[in-house]
Amino acid sequence: MQNRRLVLAQRPVGHVNESTTRLETVDRPTCAENEALVKIGMLSIDPTIRTWMDDAAGYLPPIQIGDVIRSGGAGVVVETNSSRYQVGDVVYGMSGWQEYCIASEENRFSVLPTGMGIDLATVMNVVGLTGLTAYFGMTDVGAIKQGDVVVVSGAAGATGSVAGQIAKARGAQKVVGIAGGPEKCREVVELYGFDECLDYKEPHLARRIHEACPKGVDLYFDNVGGVILDDVLTALSMNARVVLCGAIAQYNATDAGAGLQNYLMLLIRRARMEGFIILDYADRFSEAQMELATMLLSGKLAHREHLVDGLENAPNALNLLFSGGNHGKTLVVVDNTVALR
Amino acid sequence: MQNRRLVLAQRPVGHVNESTTRLETVDRPTCAENEALVKIGMLSIDPTIRTWMDDAAGYLPPIQIGDVIRSGGAGVVVETNSSRYQVGDVVYGMSGWQEYCIASEENRFSVLPTGMGIDLATVMNVVGLTGLTAYFGMTDVGAIKQGDVVVVSGAAGATGSVAGQIAKARGAQKVVGIAGGPEKCREVVELYGFDECLDYKEPHLARRIHEACPKGVDLYFDNVGGVILDDVLTALSMNARVVLCGAIAQYNATDAGAGLQNYLMLLIRRARMEGFIILDYADRFSEAQMELATMLLSGKLAHREHLVDGLENAPNALNLLFSGGNHGKTLVVVDNTVALR
Repeated sequence: MQNRRLVLAQRPVGHVNESTTRLETVDRPTCAENEALVKIGMLSIDPTIRTWMDDAAGYLPPIQIGDVIRSGGAGVVVETNSSRYQVGDVVYGMSGWQEYCIASEENRFSVLPTGMGIDLATVMNVVGLTGLTAYFGMTDVGAIKQGDVVVVSGAAGATGSVAGQIAKARGAQKVVGIAGGPEKCREVVELYGFDECLDYKEPHLARRIHEACPKGVDLYFDNVGGVILDDVLTALSMNARVVLCGAIAQYNATDAGAGLQNYLMLLIRRARMEGFIILDYADRFSEAQMELATMLLSGKLAHREHLVDGLENAPNALNLLFSGGNHGKTLVVVDNTVALR
Repeated sequence: MQNRRLVLAQRPVGHVNESTTRLETVDRPTCAENEALVKIGMLSIDPTIRTWMDDAAGYLPPIQIGDVIRSGGAGVVVETNSSRYQVGDVVYGMSGWQEYCIASEENRFSVLPTGMGIDLATVMNVVGLTGLTAYFGMTDVGAIKQGDVVVVSGAAGATGSVAGQIAKARGAQKVVGIAGGPEKCREVVELYGFDECLDYKEPHLARRIHEACPKGVDLYFDNVGGVILDDVLTALSMNARVVLCGAIAQYNATDAGAGLQNYLMLLIRRARMEGFIILDYADRFSEAQMELATMLLSGKLAHREHLVDGLENAPNALNLLFSGGNHGKTLVVVDNTVALR
């Protein structure tokens, strides 16, 4: 009746390493009135987890030293004292990096739909927060419209790959990805159907963006921040929209860096740059999930999951997002018996 | 029958100096079919003129070497071959830094209204492009609403002072200015009616912004860019709007500077930063001018003009905007007989 969990041992400076987390074995939690016990099957590994490890202002409070690492995860209800959760329900919520967690009235895990023929990993990728982030970033914040020239960074990543496909589905004239290395660039074009993909590891990115988008970039969906964002700013078209979805180039930074040099392009091109957090869209998730599931079931949403086995490997899985060692949505398999039927 | 004019002799590096412009005396232009000859009375001295002197991408093409310095100006029609312009009309348009210019079908000078009891300098300030910039920046781009906490930089300047008063008139809960030196800060509060004004020349601006706006800044109207913008970004409230109106801290910069360090606050606070150019609002000028004139005539729009005598002093007048040596809207008087009756 034990629970293995990863707690924050020490705040990372730069990348997460073996001193950042500590594997603890504690008693399995018990469920009180209106609570259920969840056996966790899979963890969603997202760049934002790295930001929660810093003692810095963020959209959620920092993880405290000694606390379980905050993370999305899915599992199966194994005990219940709640009318909200039935034994056998597969649920998704902020599970943390551990084997068991409590679902309550407060933390509101969602019960995942069964019978759609979509497996758990796919749901956690394109129908879950990752797909939803791409969806609202592109449609609501980015206000994608027919004929737009769109650039997406982190294009081989979980969010970026979906964002580009949504842009295409909504009638973008051209969708250009930015990714690291020839293999990922090929994947962005061949698997995810982008029109073109630029390798940021090659020189003269700004010039290549201008060449790929000679009339300018109408919508830039940014997952990386830093110098790539600065390069795209030089190529904005009139009234362009820059969607700040994430900034993986910044999350492990140990110095302030050069800062954004070209923000005055927002003035010259009457453009806007806007950040968003997917949690703000909670009351509109179902409309988006309908559209995403429809695209998926009709074969119009390519996706790829990168499974890492074992709770203890979650820190390494997180680092993959920043080294580019992953392909597609990164998930840690804690218990492979948990599945959507 | 001569025309004195200032042409661009050499592109400035940093501030404009005596080598930047050259005073030429040439023949007075003659008006062809559908044109009128305008004797210029007053020039509008705006920070943006400095950006046109650089050979760099901008919202208008750079001024070419040997060309008259581009500038707004008002004058009186002295000859006409156009049904659009009558002799005696006081008109406003892109006159350039010179004594005479041509108003045509293409450059569309506007005929200023007479009989309102508002003098020419005031019209060129609060009812002209300066007031219009403040108006659309605050209402349309900034989407000012009842209860907002508003910060305005360049608050003693022509645009900033009007922007703050519009925010107040639209029901802002608190309007905080940022200006340089105790004298200007006093003017911002006492003359323009801001609730408070922070001196950016004193240390710890970011901390003082947080103290003045403990619940965060809902709307920041930025006239300066650079480190002041970076400081305000740290204090944004949720869903804040940052209006990029100008960036006088950058226009004379000879190196790239530190860049914007805190742009990820836009992500954390789901905020947007947006640039605009007043020329895009041309078809909505009259609605704004009605409101501005009403505020003015009912004594609810404090304003101040800083008159500099003589065409040859236009370059020095431009430098005043960046040294902070001006008080209010800076205008160069080319001919003091031109007046609105």
